[in-house]
Amino acid sequence: MVAHPQPCLFSIEMNSITFQENTRSCIGCLRDSLKAMLGRFKGKVMEIAKQTKKIGEDDPRRIVHAIKVGLALTFVSLFYYIRPLYDGFGQAGMWAILTVVVVFEFTVGGTLSKSINRGCATLIAGALGVGAEYLANLCGEGQAFVLGVLVFILAAIATFTRFFPKVKQRYDYGVTIFILTFSLVAVSGSQATTNLQIAYQRLSTILIGGATCMIISIFICPVWAGQDLHNLITGNVEKLATFLEGFGGELFSSPGDESSVVQCKDDKEKSYLQIYKSVLNSKATEESLANFAWWEIGHGGFKFHHPWKQYLKIGVLVRDCACHIEVLSRCINTKPQVASEFQLKIQSTCKNMSIECSKGLKELSFAVKNMTFPSPAAKIHIQNSAATADGFKNILENSSLSTKTDLQEVMPVLVTASILIDIIRCVEEISVSVDELSQKARFRKPIKSLEKQQQLLHRGIVKPVNDHVVLEIRETGGDSVDNKKLRSGVVKPVDGISGGNDHINDKDQRDVGGLSTGEQKSSSV
Amino acid sequence: MVAHPQPCLFSIEMNSITFQENTRSCIGCLRDSLKAMLGRFKGKVMEIAKQTKKIGEDDPRRIVHAIKVGLALTFVSLFYYIRPLYDGFGQAGMWAILTVVVVFEFTVGGTLSKSINRGCATLIAGALGVGAEYLANLCGEGQAFVLGVLVFILAAIATFTRFFPKVKQRYDYGVTIFILTFSLVAVSGSQATTNLQIAYQRLSTILIGGATCMIISIFICPVWAGQDLHNLITGNVEKLATFLEGFGGELFSSPGDESSVVQCKDDKEKSYLQIYKSVLNSKATEESLANFAWWEIGHGGFKFHHPWKQYLKIGVLVRDCACHIEVLSRCINTKPQVASEFQLKIQSTCKNMSIECSKGLKELSFAVKNMTFPSPAAKIHIQNSAATADGFKNILENSSLSTKTDLQEVMPVLVTASILIDIIRCVEEISVSVDELSQKARFRKPIKSLEKQQQLLHRGIVKPVNDHVVLEIRETGGDSVDNKKLRSGVVKPVDGISGGNDHINDKDQRDVGGLSTGEQKSSSV
Repeated sequence: MVAHPQPCLFSIEMNSITFQENTRSCIGCLRDSLKAMLGRFKGKVMEIAKQTKKIGEDDPRRIVHAIKVGLALTFVSLFYYIRPLYDGFGQAGMWAILTVVVVFEFTVGGTLSKSINRGCATLIAGALGVGAEYLANLCGEGQAFVLGVLVFILAAIATFTRFFPKVKQRYDYGVTIFILTFSLVAVSGSQATTNLQIAYQRLSTILIGGATCMIISIFICPVWAGQDLHNLITGNVEKLATFLEGFGGELFSSPGDESSVVQCKDDKEKSYLQIYKSVLNSKATEESLANFAWWEIGHGGFKFHHPWKQYLKIGVLVRDCACHIEVLSRCINTKPQVASEFQLKIQSTCKNMSIECSKGLKELSFAVKNMTFPSPAAKIHIQNSAATADGFKNILENSSLSTKTDLQEVMPVLVTASILIDIIRCVEEISVSVDELSQKARFRKPIKSLEKQQQLLHRGIVKPVNDHVVLEIRETGGDSVDNKKLRSGVVKPVDGISGGNDHINDKDQRDVGGLSTGEQKSSSV
Repeated sequence: MVAHPQPCLFSIEMNSITFQENTRSCIGCLRDSLKAMLGRFKGKVMEIAKQTKKIGEDDPRRIVHAIKVGLALTFVSLFYYIRPLYDGFGQAGMWAILTVVVVFEFTVGGTLSKSINRGCATLIAGALGVGAEYLANLCGEGQAFVLGVLVFILAAIATFTRFFPKVKQRYDYGVTIFILTFSLVAVSGSQATTNLQIAYQRLSTILIGGATCMIISIFICPVWAGQDLHNLITGNVEKLATFLEGFGGELFSSPGDESSVVQCKDDKEKSYLQIYKSVLNSKATEESLANFAWWEIGHGGFKFHHPWKQYLKIGVLVRDCACHIEVLSRCINTKPQVASEFQLKIQSTCKNMSIECSKGLKELSFAVKNMTFPSPAAKIHIQNSAATADGFKNILENSSLSTKTDLQEVMPVLVTASILIDIIRCVEEISVSVDELSQKARFRKPIKSLEKQQQLLHRGIVKPVNDHVVLEIRETGGDSVDNKKLRSGVVKPVDGISGGNDHINDKDQRDVGGLSTGEQKSSSV
């Protein structure tokens, strides 16, 4: 038996009961939907919190930037808070706030660019505006008409200049402010009498606003666009190297290896397959950073007018290389099940080319990162890869295909090899461009410092704790551990490339020898 | 005998003569350098004039835009000129000018986005600012401190939200204006008494400024971001088609052909080799256009909330394809001097793949351009190219290489074929994506209109002048003339692809038959 809730007290008829039940179910419905809404709201809040955390963690400088903007804004608000200043500047105080809000950018270069643009444009447009007002006054009755025509002409011309690439690139904000200030000064002149005083007030508050931004931007945890561009380019070169390393190392591992490690490698493989993708889309970021960097004063190792354009040139070549890698990455799925001797031969050649290219790129990236000339090892790795490419032609010449179906099986490796040869050409171009950069930017020569360090090492002045990294990279790029193991016999070379590899190591060792005795100085230029 | 100018009258001694000569040479120098300067100045002016002409000719809408901005600015200047309005709005009139200068963008979407952002942000921030002021008033003496803290917190939080991709993408300007307005309202409140009146004045002038921009932007020669995005994407697809057409048609022309036409082709070849390059770098433009298009009201064939995101998806695939084309373009230099039979066979296969892909892409581009579903011909061309790719595998299986050196010679064509096969995959993906777009955007079905047109044609209602274009493209893409010639026997197929080509034409003809009787409707979905 089920006890009926509130039986027959308020609900005498069936209709009433239905109504009550309806109401109850309605309330239940409402409660449910409220709960669901609350749940969704909670979920949304949690999601936002999570995203906020991620954005902050990805680049903690963003949090600092937000605080800096708050600080600058609070500071210029003094113009309003403190009565004496307010009395002095009047309503013009708001221009300081406006300037801070609009001018403060994430990077120092951005802030400088906008501040300087704003300052100069205000000055020029203010002067022109006063002139326009004077001209209009001469016309007596037609004053308003003359001013209107002048505003129209100047606004139209200035707007059109924004389509000039150079103006767009560097002075876009300045032109906006020019139009704004000219219109304001010219037009307000037709009403206000104390025009010069207003101009003075406005200009000084804008200067104070701009100066506040510049000082806070430069002296409190500065974010230099130049440094960011530098890091972006070195990072991109390294990404290419990482792909080629992964490609060379994992794609052509012999089938025996693969079965045992394929599962734990899956994630890693995916990451190196994805890592170069961002390189393809970095053009816009690079260009805006280079633009901002142009405005920046000297900082770190970068002087005023560091050759930022050269970074863009390297960026173009790096993207070209990434394009080839994009096509190359399709070849991963075309791995044959059972490889013939000929295929294995070409595979090992490909592995060699890929790994050597990767090492060369790592050397280049390391050199740019540390602002030194590329070490001779970089050239040697690239030369090795080119030599391997030549060797590939020999293999082709000396090979004879046994059966009819060979060609179809062989094709994937041939295509891979061909694209890798193209990539080598790209890497050579990148190398030339990095050389140019190191000359233009007057990077340090790495040899002397290494020499010095090694001399100190021999004398026992420096303990060999920190030089590990340096020596490691001078020798064989980022892959030294494997090679050391190879040399010491811990890991045996898997496929038939031991000869080639030893050869490379020999070269490397000779190279290091050359470095320590200073014999190969010329090759680093 | 040479008459000395002004002999011995003013210059009695040698020194004096030297001095005079020095002065004269100095003046000459000055004159020369002045001339040179004037020449340089003239050159510079000419250069700027040339550039101005080019920028205007490249896109005449730029000139119109400049005039529109001038117009809007002159219009809102009425706030200052006409005294009654000036008295009513006071200094707030400048906000109308400021709004116009900052808000007026090249595209309607850009202007709408900024206007709406500005309006909403001003409203919300104004209300919050008044609230903050009220809160601060409650605190009595600590008023300034409370306001400072509030401004700091809100500015910092709002600045940080700008790093959220979605906020950055759509509301970046709104956030800037939010910070600005909040600071101005909250802070000016501590001094001004008639705060609400100021807020009302400011808001109304901003609304008038924004409305002026929106109206002029929409009704005087509007530049729709959506239309631009639409054109950009169709243009990019067409560029790929142009490359593939050029590549297929010119690269693998038989050596006999080549010698006679190689020189006059040089320029043309260069242009099709360069034309796809811009596709690689169109990402930033596409994204900003899609962003602006999101804000636009319905226009032309585009409704409000047209699936602009789908255009971006197509854009990604098109860039992927362009990447492959970039690699493919390297293969042009690897043309063999004397081609073996096997090479010729593969070459003609490559030519077929390239041309069919090109036709398929042209059909797709044509369909998107005219906002119709892709015609069945597009699918058929792509299927043909895929079938040719399968045929390529057969050629490989059935081939036997005769000599040892064959492999090296054959490699370039193998690589070309392999990349072309990848490109076919890209084109297939593009085709799927275009299908999705036509469904999402509810494009017209081309069949019925064609059917109708043909019925009208049979009845003699429409004269067959304009349908030429439609029929031409329905049949065989942009290359119909050649195919018609082929069918009528005017041009004989050069290489061994006549069978395949006839097959294609048969298919096409069947397809057109199907179209006119309405049998193949399902294939267009």
